[in-house]
Amino acid sequence: MAYPDKRADTAFPIHELLASRWSPRAFADRAIPADVLGSLFEAARWAPSSRNLQPWHFVIAARHRDPAGFARILGTLMEGNQIWAQHASLLLIAVTKPKPDEGGRANPYAHYDVGQAIAHLSIQALACGLYIHQMGGFRRDAAREALAIPAGYDPVVSAAIGYLADPSALPEEIRDRELAPRSRNSLSEHVFGGTWGAPFPDYA
Amino acid sequence: MAYPDKRADTAFPIHELLASRWSPRAFADRAIPADVLGSLFEAARWAPSSRNLQPWHFVIAARHRDPAGFARILGTLMEGNQIWAQHASLLLIAVTKPKPDEGGRANPYAHYDVGQAIAHLSIQALACGLYIHQMGGFRRDAAREALAIPAGYDPVVSAAIGYLADPSALPEEIRDRELAPRSRNSLSEHVFGGTWGAPFPDYA
Repeated sequence: MAYPDKRADTAFPIHELLASRWSPRAFADRAIPADVLGSLFEAARWAPSSRNLQPWHFVIAARHRDPAGFARILGTLMEGNQIWAQHASLLLIAVTKPKPDEGGRANPYAHYDVGQAIAHLSIQALACGLYIHQMGGFRRDAAREALAIPAGYDPVVSAAIGYLADPSALPEEIRDRELAPRSRNSLSEHVFGGTWGAPFPDYA
Repeated sequence: MAYPDKRADTAFPIHELLASRWSPRAFADRAIPADVLGSLFEAARWAPSSRNLQPWHFVIAARHRDPAGFARILGTLMEGNQIWAQHASLLLIAVTKPKPDEGGRANPYAHYDVGQAIAHLSIQALACGLYIHQMGGFRRDAAREALAIPAGYDPVVSAAIGYLADPSALPEEIRDRELAPRSRNSLSEHVFGGTWGAPFPDYA
C-alpha cells in the first residue's frame, strides 16, 4: 500500500519542490546521513530575517544516533502526535528569542522568521527526499524543562522529519485522514488586487 | 556594473533556489507576466499552516498594470524603502487574521504561517527569475487605511518583487551596503544536539 498522489492541485504551475511538499505521518526506519542533516539546517541558516537577527534556535535529536535525546523531545509531544512521530528519523523543537536586545522592545518578526526558517528547511528536506511534519501539539513547559531552554527563549513549534513509509503501518483512524486529498481555499479568497476585497488581478 | 556573486557561502550544500535567494534593492523596469504572478501566489497558497487555517491575505499591485494601487502601497512604506521599492514590479502587503474563530482564542501561528507562505512565494519567485525584498519598514495604520483592511485583520509585512537590475542606478549609500557579502551566524550558534547548548551533532 503506497500513498496516493498528494501533489498540490494547482491553478498555476509551481516548482516541483513546493508542489510535492506535504506533511505525512508514516516514516521509514532509516537514519538521516550526517551531511544531509547539515544541509537541512544550513538551509534554515540562510533564510532571511528582520534586521538579520536570525531569531531561531533548533534543539534536534536523531532517533538512531541519539535515542535519549529523541525520547526527551518525543515526551513533550501530545499523545496523538507521539503515536506516529515516534517513528520519525529526527525530532526538533524550534525556539525563538522574542526580545533580542537586552531590556529592549520585542522583535515583531520573531515567530514570522522562525516560520521562514522552517519553510526553507522543509524545501531543502524535499530536495533530499525527506518530509517534515510540523506540530503545534506539544507541551511548551515540558519542552522548556526537558531541553533546558533558558528564560528569555520561547518554544515555537515541534517537527518530525523522515523518509516516507508505507501508510498501512499507521493506526486506522490516522490512516484514513492521511490518504485524503490535500485542500486549500481558492486564490481569490486570499489575494486582492490593489485594495482589500478586490479580485485577484489576472491583468489579462 | 553587475552585482557580485551573492550566493550563500554554505558549510553544507543547499538547493540552488535557496542558495541564490537574497534581498536586492535594484529592480528592472519590467512587468511580471500574468501567469508568473499566478504561480507566485499559488506557491503561497499551498504552504502549510496550523489547522490548515491559511491565515494569510495579500493585497498586491503591479506597477505597470495598476499604477494607482502601486502608489497606494508605496505610500505606506518608510521613505528609506520608497527610494528603491518604487522601481519594483510588484508591491504587496501581507495581512493576517490573529483570531480566526469568532470570539475565540488567538491563533498562535498566525504570524509564523504568514512567514511560511512568504517563504514559499520567495522560492517560487526565484524559480521564475524574480527576487523579493521583504520590509518591516511600513506604516501599519496607513496600510490599514489606504488598502481598506478591515478590523480583525493585521498588516504583517510588506514586500517588493521584481527582476534584478544593474545596481549602479542605486543611490551611493544604498549601493555600498548592497554590494557587501551576505552573512549569517554559524550553525553551532543555532542548532543544538539533544539539549540546549549542546553542540550541533555531526554524528560522524
